[in-house]
Amino acid sequence: MEKKVVVIGGGTGTYTVLLGLKKFPLNLSVVVSMMDSGGSNRVIRDEFGLLPTSDIRQCMVALSSENADQTLRKLFTYRYSLGTGITGMTFGNLFMAALTDIYGGNQEKAISKTCEILGVKGSIIPVTYDNSHLVARYSNGKQVLGEHAIDEPDGELVKHRIVEVELFPPAHANKKAILAIKSADIIVIGPGDLYTSILPNFLVKGIKAAVRRSRAKKVYVVNLMTRHGQTDGFTAGRHLDELQKYIGPVIDVVLVNNKNKYPREVLKRYEQEQAFPVVDDLENLQKPLVIRGDFVSERVYEKSKGDKLTRSLIRHDSDKLARKIVSLL
Amino acid sequence: MEKKVVVIGGGTGTYTVLLGLKKFPLNLSVVVSMMDSGGSNRVIRDEFGLLPTSDIRQCMVALSSENADQTLRKLFTYRYSLGTGITGMTFGNLFMAALTDIYGGNQEKAISKTCEILGVKGSIIPVTYDNSHLVARYSNGKQVLGEHAIDEPDGELVKHRIVEVELFPPAHANKKAILAIKSADIIVIGPGDLYTSILPNFLVKGIKAAVRRSRAKKVYVVNLMTRHGQTDGFTAGRHLDELQKYIGPVIDVVLVNNKNKYPREVLKRYEQEQAFPVVDDLENLQKPLVIRGDFVSERVYEKSKGDKLTRSLIRHDSDKLARKIVSLL
Repeated sequence: MEKKVVVIGGGTGTYTVLLGLKKFPLNLSVVVSMMDSGGSNRVIRDEFGLLPTSDIRQCMVALSSENADQTLRKLFTYRYSLGTGITGMTFGNLFMAALTDIYGGNQEKAISKTCEILGVKGSIIPVTYDNSHLVARYSNGKQVLGEHAIDEPDGELVKHRIVEVELFPPAHANKKAILAIKSADIIVIGPGDLYTSILPNFLVKGIKAAVRRSRAKKVYVVNLMTRHGQTDGFTAGRHLDELQKYIGPVIDVVLVNNKNKYPREVLKRYEQEQAFPVVDDLENLQKPLVIRGDFVSERVYEKSKGDKLTRSLIRHDSDKLARKIVSLL
Repeated sequence: MEKKVVVIGGGTGTYTVLLGLKKFPLNLSVVVSMMDSGGSNRVIRDEFGLLPTSDIRQCMVALSSENADQTLRKLFTYRYSLGTGITGMTFGNLFMAALTDIYGGNQEKAISKTCEILGVKGSIIPVTYDNSHLVARYSNGKQVLGEHAIDEPDGELVKHRIVEVELFPPAHANKKAILAIKSADIIVIGPGDLYTSILPNFLVKGIKAAVRRSRAKKVYVVNLMTRHGQTDGFTAGRHLDELQKYIGPVIDVVLVNNKNKYPREVLKRYEQEQAFPVVDDLENLQKPLVIRGDFVSERVYEKSKGDKLTRSLIRHDSDKLARKIVSLL
């Protein structure tokens, strides 16, 4: 029987892991954060009254079949750079919004039909179907609502630390997410923005308990770079501590990249955004098991036209990461 | 060898004819007007800098394969009713706009790829690839630019007649349109809005001459209803005269509906828009041949959410029309 792998996340990091894992004969599921509120998602939430689908859309593209129509796959990564009110929207989100309307408002059905059209391998599971927003409390006492506002903090806020994140209103787990976590052989958490892509999943009622109860091996993939306004100065250990503050000391394996000879030019661009390579300070750790290796991609990623959000230039390598994860099974 | 049928038009009337004709084993082409400038097309033209694709989109839906993914077909008839700047846009136009951008601005390639995805039977041929607008001169001497402004004239304008239509700037025929017309066995013109869907095709340089030179049987399908501000009081004869004023006395057969017991309620709604059934005054005509019959659909059509344009409630019946056209071959 195929081993059951559950990836928990959302965003580019999850996209990267999935792209590698789908090449292996696995029973693959991904539990996706539903708290995105920026760009295309703001329109989807506020103007269409739907749940945000950008994280889902990225997972769809990652897991779409090589045999599916390549044009449709390309369209799903397309972001409009023209048209008042359309610029910045992703084709995929507009596709799913139209389909949801056709299905009388049933977004779950629209998502599953889209997966079918794209020949998605594996299950893409929204962590919740509740309409909920991420709220962050900062070290200066301020509270900020909305994943987007937390992801790209402005003004004073970037100088302060996030003390706590929660959901408002509270969200309840999608039963399918609980079931997938329960029966998993391995659960992969990260890489991805800690506060805005990873932790929102564990704030959904029922997810944390399901992960703790699951007999799966729990693997945490540490980010390559820090993120200004969110994880400034965070070492690998600090990332792990912050994660376990929310889910408890359940992580069995930590994957840390130890090859970080990044191009100077790229590092400079990160420096301009006050982002730096994550320092590995896990030398003396007994538990979890720390596995170091070259997990980084040789490619430097650029963002597409019309995209106003910050995206990673330096990314994990899908295949290197997937091979290591599969070796843990 | 399959008989070659060329439909010339654009809009709902053409959609209706195609829907019927595609059921027959024919070599089917449709030459489509490219002067639309309303609603979704305004955005496509002014904001995306592309040629309008609504008429093409309707033809695609009409000719799409029953075997194609039904969801995609449904999506291509979908019009957004939510989202600032998105309301009123059609999914199909947004689909082709994204694809054109992916293809480096090549709209022809995007159209042909879309036909492939939808399993379109037959050839959909834009009458021109030149960016041109329809201009109408009215009986009060005023000139109006833009198909949309002519289609839905406001204020004073509706009281005056259209004296002449032309294109600005002049447009040159797509060679494929010329070739299709040249080798056709039958050319079907109409039904459809005379000034805004039918005549724009013949204003494109090369089309009129090609039709006149073609040895095809030329069939004109007379509209069921007049249109306020455009064809007020037009009889069947007046429709024919106006068409032949532009293309010359080339029509061989005129199809006129003689069953017009429309539901009183529907006629009232037309009356509110000052539209009335077209009167058949072709009794004493020697040439062209007038064929009368029941060509009308029993169904009353309603417009979709988010659609701000006027659409026909009373329409020709696809099958009745197609059967008669095929019998002329």
